[in-house]
Amino acid sequence: MFLKNAWYVAAWTSEITRDLRQITVLDEKICIFRTESGDLIGLEDACPHRKLPLSRGRIRGDTVECGYHGLTFDCAGQCVRAPGAGRIPSEARVHAYPLCEKYGLVWIWMGNPALADTADIFDIPNFDDPSWGINRGSAMELECNYLLMCDNLLDPTHVAWVHESSFAAAGTKDTPLRVTKTDEGVVVHRWIMDHEPAPFYKKVICFSGNCDRLQHYEVRYPGHALIRAVFTPAGTGGPDGPLHDDTFIMDSYNFMTPTNAHQTRYYWFQLRNIRPDDAELSAMMSADVQKAFEEDRAVLNEVQKGMTDKRSPHIDLPIDAGPLRFRRQLQAMINEEQQVDRQMAE
Amino acid sequence: MFLKNAWYVAAWTSEITRDLRQITVLDEKICIFRTESGDLIGLEDACPHRKLPLSRGRIRGDTVECGYHGLTFDCAGQCVRAPGAGRIPSEARVHAYPLCEKYGLVWIWMGNPALADTADIFDIPNFDDPSWGINRGSAMELECNYLLMCDNLLDPTHVAWVHESSFAAAGTKDTPLRVTKTDEGVVVHRWIMDHEPAPFYKKVICFSGNCDRLQHYEVRYPGHALIRAVFTPAGTGGPDGPLHDDTFIMDSYNFMTPTNAHQTRYYWFQLRNIRPDDAELSAMMSADVQKAFEEDRAVLNEVQKGMTDKRSPHIDLPIDAGPLRFRRQLQAMINEEQQVDRQMAE
Amino acid sequence: MFLKNAWYVAAWTSEITRDLRQITVLDEKICIFRTESGDLIGLEDACPHRKLPLSRGRIRGDTVECGYHGLTFDCAGQCVRAPGAGRIPSEARVHAYPLCEKYGLVWIWMGNPALADTADIFDIPNFDDPSWGINRGSAMELECNYLLMCDNLLDPTHVAWVHESSFAAAGTKDTPLRVTKTDEGVVVHRWIMDHEPAPFYKKVICFSGNCDRLQHYEVRYPGHALIRAVFTPAGTGGPDGPLHDDTFIMDSYNFMTPTNAHQTRYYWFQLRNIRPDDAELSAMMSADVQKAFEEDRAVLNEVQKGMTDKRSPHIDLPIDAGPLRFRRQLQAMINEEQQVDRQMAE
Repeated sequence: MFLKNAWYVAAWTSEITRDLRQITVLDEKICIFRTESGDLIGLEDACPHRKLPLSRGRIRGDTVECGYHGLTFDCAGQCVRAPGAGRIPSEARVHAYPLCEKYGLVWIWMGNPALADTADIFDIPNFDDPSWGINRGSAMELECNYLLMCDNLLDPTHVAWVHESSFAAAGTKDTPLRVTKTDEGVVVHRWIMDHEPAPFYKKVICFSGNCDRLQHYEVRYPGHALIRAVFTPAGTGGPDGPLHDDTFIMDSYNFMTPTNAHQTRYYWFQLRNIRPDDAELSAMMSADVQKAFEEDRAVLNEVQKGMTDKRSPHIDLPIDAGPLRFRRQLQAMINEEQQVDRQMAE
Repeated sequence: MFLKNAWYVAAWTSEITRDLRQITVLDEKICIFRTESGDLIGLEDACPHRKLPLSRGRIRGDTVECGYHGLTFDCAGQCVRAPGAGRIPSEARVHAYPLCEKYGLVWIWMGNPALADTADIFDIPNFDDPSWGINRGSAMELECNYLLMCDNLLDPTHVAWVHESSFAAAGTKDTPLRVTKTDEGVVVHRWIMDHEPAPFYKKVICFSGNCDRLQHYEVRYPGHALIRAVFTPAGTGGPDGPLHDDTFIMDSYNFMTPTNAHQTRYYWFQLRNIRPDDAELSAMMSADVQKAFEEDRAVLNEVQKGMTDKRSPHIDLPIDAGPLRFRRQLQAMINEEQQVDRQMAE
Repeated sequence: MFLKNAWYVAAWTSEITRDLRQITVLDEKICIFRTESGDLIGLEDACPHRKLPLSRGRIRGDTVECGYHGLTFDCAGQCVRAPGAGRIPSEARVHAYPLCEKYGLVWIWMGNPALADTADIFDIPNFDDPSWGINRGSAMELECNYLLMCDNLLDPTHVAWVHESSFAAAGTKDTPLRVTKTDEGVVVHRWIMDHEPAPFYKKVICFSGNCDRLQHYEVRYPGHALIRAVFTPAGTGGPDGPLHDDTFIMDSYNFMTPTNAHQTRYYWFQLRNIRPDDAELSAMMSADVQKAFEEDRAVLNEVQKGMTDKRSPHIDLPIDAGPLRFRRQLQAMINEEQQVDRQMAE
């Protein structure tokens, strides 16, 4: 089960055009396209007559015509034309999903449209700040439940084994973690003091010698992560001090959209506080990130299979405190949402 | 569930030779071949011993020998030889299906052999009339239940959207339909008066200017269709009048054989009342028909998925009156057949 | 269900190295590798934390480190290191399977390790006898339950139809069979007297003219077969006499390891009492055997499907006496084993 009253990432904005396209979010098929004026429209992708996907039909101005019998739907999902003239049946409508374009992403609201408020979309404060550069993101299909990736993004420890050649460094194995619950999700973080920077970061930070490093791993409901990496010259970091002038910060934004219970579409990009216009740097960092995320994918796809077919109970470790807290609270939110739905249905 | 006491098309006659071949009809596997004198034989394709398909064995004169232990079956399905000599167990027999060759097709009777009467095979009056030409047919696999194709062939309206570049013309969207129930099935028809001929027909009719057009869509139990198209010069058509000398008629014969509940083998050919010996015309029309039927296949394969996984109820429209009537009557026949089977079993 | 307290073939010894490798036996996934000193180790292939297969991790000396969080297991399956230091949870262990190297094969004990005794491994008396030659064996995947291959190897009759061009000869169809139950399994055998040798053997026996032939088909629990073929000059064979000097003997060893309920890994090789060092002869016989076993595979894969989807009951024949006896006794052993397991669990 999924949290329905939430914004999920549906696509990159560049993926949605005047061509009808089918996407699947929370196991629901959606026909997504742009109106003549460029607005985003998302309709339940099944003609109510014989359930042919509307995305197999034709776009006609700002309406969609079914490819079997020409039933035509407007942007609100209402049938406005049906063959054989006569009355259009009142049930001849499809759900219209609230959509919104932000940060180069298409966001979709999967629950009650009356509750959709774009102010609730995940906030990215530095997105438009010209002093920050962007590592162009990408997307990949994971053959696992989205919560396994949420676990992963509340788990700074895994980098020591999964990302040995990129994000791992002394201290990533054992430095204790701090877990904090916020109104929006869970944060797991730690400062690792006075060690040699990890290979991925060593190439980009603008000071030499050892560093102090913050790993800030945060996932917000329903499944959006901010992974903040901070590197300062050794001796200048830590929770209390003001940031040193040479501080390097990378904010990695990660959005997990459940395709269904065992598949996830995973989107990401990063913002960095240095050399905003350095395209070569952006390209290098994007490529390194993609490679590291492929390492996660390989592991998580196997974990999905292993947890599904397990022959004996699994065990939890202290490093799982953050992920388990996130799962518990999210499940409570899902339960509550379904309780309200049942009340309203009665 | 299927109607068992009925003739279905099993193959083109040219497909069946002295090589053992497996076909699947109504989810039953059948070993089909010809005797030395060319007669058609169809046996249940599973040796009663260890269920190896007989079609994996060897033909020996007019018997079939299992490829595992040599159990040998005659054309009536009786085991006539088993290894280790001794008595042949009385249960060592397989079902033998009544078969018949007609119209270049192999017909198979799937029910009680005692009820098989070749006089009940679908009638094609003009098949041997030398003044009619034939558009050589073909066959394709549909990934859908055969009833979805029956629906399609009782639905003249779909041509306006599915066959835009071939069969569609003014009036195919909206001209009202007439539904008639016959003893053998259902007919849906309409005359569309005084309009420009559809592209497919414009190339072959022998008059110019506008036309009157009859769409006669008929499906007979269990799943055989005659689609008659009549084109006359505008002003000469309609239900009452005698046919004009320039009238063009094409009878499209369509046979839907359920492979199982979600797959269908679909056979067809056409007869036309013009230029019977024009091979080039035949080839062109066959190619155009094949292309149009691929359009149906693409839609129906998606409808099968859409109706199977639907998230909300589907709705029916007035244009569905014919298909629904056909389904209701066929279901009544199936229920009755099963009731008799249960009575006999008691 | 499978017999657990038994030795199964897990691999050819040459297949297991210092690279972690996953195999599946009795539907259990096992991480198999060699220690630095070359000993064989087999561990349950799922880290108890998040069930990532250990075979996706890294070998570190004689321990295996999980690729997700570095949990490290020794050769007994005990976790000896976990991230975040602290106490290692007592449940952090995986099953370690007893393994043994014999006859070029890796043997694995799937039941209670306390009961594993390498003296119980299938005995091959002539394996190290320099006067016997070996036809190098191979392995193949069967898409069927292993018992179908056990049936096949207690069934000398099938060679007449399945191996027409290799093992079949006059008498293989009809000569009566003798069935014997031993402490270890079942033997089906017969002498076929005074006939022309089968093609496969004709090429290798060192006498000319007709032969007397013993087919000794023996399968021992849980699924290991010895197929002994004896050829003597006609008139010198039979159950009672001493063996003629020109007697040719081939012992075919066959080991069926259930991958799961519908897949089997099938291993084999042969010993022969002639020309032990003739590499060309060995290669020719190996190739012929492989070809014949492919014939079995084709049949058994189809029998698996036929028996699984059968529409009517199958029947047994007198030739099935041996296979049925083997299955009955094996099932009794499995039932007894499970009964003890339940008793111990109470």
